[in-house]
Amino acid sequence: MPILNKDMQVCISLAARPSNIGTRFHNFLYDELGLNFAYKAFTTTDLAGAVTGIRALGIRGCSVSMPFKEAIIPLVDVVEESAAAIQSINTVVNDGGVLTASNTDYEAVASLLRTHEVDPTARVLLRGSGGMAKAVTAAFRGAGSEQLTVVARNTTTGPALAEQYGFDWVATEQEAPEADVLVNVTPLGMRGADEDALAFAQDRVEAASTVFDVVAFPSETPLVRAGRTAGARVITGTEVIALQAARQFERYTGVALTDDQVRRASEFSRAE
Amino acid sequence: MPILNKDMQVCISLAARPSNIGTRFHNFLYDELGLNFAYKAFTTTDLAGAVTGIRALGIRGCSVSMPFKEAIIPLVDVVEESAAAIQSINTVVNDGGVLTASNTDYEAVASLLRTHEVDPTARVLLRGSGGMAKAVTAAFRGAGSEQLTVVARNTTTGPALAEQYGFDWVATEQEAPEADVLVNVTPLGMRGADEDALAFAQDRVEAASTVFDVVAFPSETPLVRAGRTAGARVITGTEVIALQAARQFERYTGVALTDDQVRRASEFSRAE
Repeated sequence: MPILNKDMQVCISLAARPSNIGTRFHNFLYDELGLNFAYKAFTTTDLAGAVTGIRALGIRGCSVSMPFKEAIIPLVDVVEESAAAIQSINTVVNDGGVLTASNTDYEAVASLLRTHEVDPTARVLLRGSGGMAKAVTAAFRGAGSEQLTVVARNTTTGPALAEQYGFDWVATEQEAPEADVLVNVTPLGMRGADEDALAFAQDRVEAASTVFDVVAFPSETPLVRAGRTAGARVITGTEVIALQAARQFERYTGVALTDDQVRRASEFSRAE
Repeated sequence: MPILNKDMQVCISLAARPSNIGTRFHNFLYDELGLNFAYKAFTTTDLAGAVTGIRALGIRGCSVSMPFKEAIIPLVDVVEESAAAIQSINTVVNDGGVLTASNTDYEAVASLLRTHEVDPTARVLLRGSGGMAKAVTAAFRGAGSEQLTVVARNTTTGPALAEQYGFDWVATEQEAPEADVLVNVTPLGMRGADEDALAFAQDRVEAASTVFDVVAFPSETPLVRAGRTAGARVITGTEVIALQAARQFERYTGVALTDDQVRRASEFSRAE
């Protein structure tokens, strides 16, 4: 990477606990493509002040992570339609002082449902009801799914999410119907406390045609491993995180990425 | 330079028309010293918003150039005494949300008067009455100079500057007394409109023991060249700009620089 210069366009991220993934993903591709950009993760305890700074310093783009995905909405100027429906955004682009927000998690999941040819008539079980679950549920709806059941203990967000898209809600997996597609959008299987937890019962995994885990760390979660063993089609959180970053990259720079570039940037971003 | 990472401390600059000097100077030394810092020049039309952003994003340091050196004072928390006297600051350090302002131009000039052994009993003519002239005049006063005449056409700032330090003021060089030390703190000799202008009359240069030009671009101004030809001691704007950047670097990073490091960083910063 060349030494920084005054003319670089700067993109940042805002998260309570930043990871290094975005910083490595974007800078890897700036370097490879020879773009005069720099990307750096930040944290903040003053989201409004950070957005004021984005405007005042002319920062080109900002990736938004937990817990700012909803709180930042009133601070931007334009919210793209798909993100407005979800009421959760992860991307802000600054065009000459006009901040436009979008949700590339939604776009990434929608894209993965197409490329993995997930059947819209399949019966889907989706576990979770947080911000990311909203994006994933919206993407299934957008892909034409009609039989989806939200499994969520939270008796407020669970039924609200299901209702918004005309789907069913159950509080526990035990109450859920049989399903062809299992989708985990909870921390079950994530590095840390629930690392060993299988997000769905073993017999459900064995009966499923497709297993989709949004957890990205580790990439090979218990659900992903069980799905591979059972011979199911598997979609990983690593694919989601890479694709959503790629869509951000394209919005910030105007440069479209090849699948190979996305794959190599993703590998680099996770390799430390 | 290694690819950026999330843990880097970020320093920036704010100027109406940023140069690349600071960005290259600081990043060169971060790289050489293996410091996990990054530095990037910015411009802004919203100074208060930019300072809000510095606080909200936890930006470690900010170098301040024209036209923000006075306007930023009410936006910081602490102003060091020497900078408060000048009412012009060029450096802001963020210690956990507390912004402390200082003026390393003043410090650099004070240091150069020592290392070049400028005689405090010498008669000084100083041309200019802007923000930088305030810093240079204060440094002469701090070095013990008692015979200094400010030459400035501006009938408000000229006499005000002289009066603040108990010096004399004249409107034109023709009215000025004889002098041993000539100091140019105007744009005369600067790349652009006044590039060929000699800041003082040729016979004054020939009579001077020391010639000090604060203009840094080019380094070899007409005054510097005339001073060298006349065999005077010469102090250049290049020395000022390098030393003030070094003092900023030390405040931002806590790392003291050697003369050799400052010299090489200065050469690198100007070499494009």
